[in-house]
Amino acid sequence: MSGQAPGAAGFVGMEMFRPDPTPTAEVHEHEAVRVGLAEAVRDLVDATIRSTVADTEIADVERGVRDLTARLRVQQTPGPFGVRYNDEFHAWNWGNAVVGRANAIAPPLDLVPRDGGGLRAQLNLGAAYEGPPGLVHGGVTMLLLDHLMGEVASAGNTRVTLTGTLSGRYEAPTPLGEVVLEGWITGEEGRKVLVDATIGTVDAVCVRAAGVFIVPSWAASDDGGTSAHA
Amino acid sequence: MSGQAPGAAGFVGMEMFRPDPTPTAEVHEHEAVRVGLAEAVRDLVDATIRSTVADTEIADVERGVRDLTARLRVQQTPGPFGVRYNDEFHAWNWGNAVVGRANAIAPPLDLVPRDGGGLRAQLNLGAAYEGPPGLVHGGVTMLLLDHLMGEVASAGNTRVTLTGTLSGRYEAPTPLGEVVLEGWITGEEGRKVLVDATIGTVDAVCVRAAGVFIVPSWAASDDGGTSAHA
Repeated sequence: MSGQAPGAAGFVGMEMFRPDPTPTAEVHEHEAVRVGLAEAVRDLVDATIRSTVADTEIADVERGVRDLTARLRVQQTPGPFGVRYNDEFHAWNWGNAVVGRANAIAPPLDLVPRDGGGLRAQLNLGAAYEGPPGLVHGGVTMLLLDHLMGEVASAGNTRVTLTGTLSGRYEAPTPLGEVVLEGWITGEEGRKVLVDATIGTVDAVCVRAAGVFIVPSWAASDDGGTSAHA
Repeated sequence: MSGQAPGAAGFVGMEMFRPDPTPTAEVHEHEAVRVGLAEAVRDLVDATIRSTVADTEIADVERGVRDLTARLRVQQTPGPFGVRYNDEFHAWNWGNAVVGRANAIAPPLDLVPRDGGGLRAQLNLGAAYEGPPGLVHGGVTMLLLDHLMGEVASAGNTRVTLTGTLSGRYEAPTPLGEVVLEGWITGEEGRKVLVDATIGTVDAVCVRAAGVFIVPSWAASDDGGTSAHA
């Protein structure tokens, strides 16, 4: 995520957009280290679900996890990560539930431009995202779609958008494994941005979604350059 | 989750409903140990997002996490956890993305009966569920609502239901912290079950959702006793 942090009043949680003096080059260095840890924790989440080792070994591993956690908590932010930004117009949201690179809950989703406009993502969903046996949890499909569609609506982080309504039609179950998401703008009406999106396998669409995203009145001026969809 | 596992053909992923000979009492013993580990991993996920210790320490903790993960992987299921059931009519889905007690991604959601019918859940959402700064990710609200509504539709696990459509209206941002979900059946039309639900703070509704859940034709016989919503 990059773009100028909004300075307008009236946005709930606005105080969590935190100015941070760290130069961008240094931010990237810290990020690489934290991405490494988050990837290791993601792998641990998967192993925790699938392990069939003895209860005594599980309990011993738990003690190890608690020790490591205590080392991380020696120094920490008092609350959620929020979104940080520096005076080089760089912003970072490592804690985001879908794209946060330091958040082991986030797959994370990597968004790339889609042919014909909008955004696309392809990723592998493992055991941690299961709902019905062997299938992606239906709510996880909505979680990922919501995020991608919001990013599509924000048009390359050139404007702030908030989700108004989001609807999904589950046409087929989505198997765990490689999934593909696509989203694109279908229209704009005043401060409303209409977005369609799909999620499915590499070969077939499983869930279709339609969303209405709103540009808040405080952000609808033409000075642009703000970004808050997350 | 409890209830008889479906034996009908035609349900994608059906092979992942795994018969397991473990007696229920022993299942509960194993579960308690795995719940302990998953809770510790949940705490590690939070600390990974919020820690501000030195990069060298982060890297060292990462090595520790990888060592513990390797110990868990000495013996494991080849794929996702699925849903297991034994001949005492007990079933368990520890890997579920929303309610799985061995899944550190799951908050997890604990569902209780709601006054007036349906189900209710109250839980604390921390840094790992953040979208916009200080707020619950909009997609996370849909993830939790989808699951609760599916459980409501399955009417105490007395029937199989699959999500047909799900719509959410975001009336206000949901702050991180204590959140409340409620869902209830508003009508039934043939094999369709209509469910309404809300999520918000203890004091106010933030997102309203409506869903249509479908009883699959293969499960619509009157023999009852099956449960597949997850």
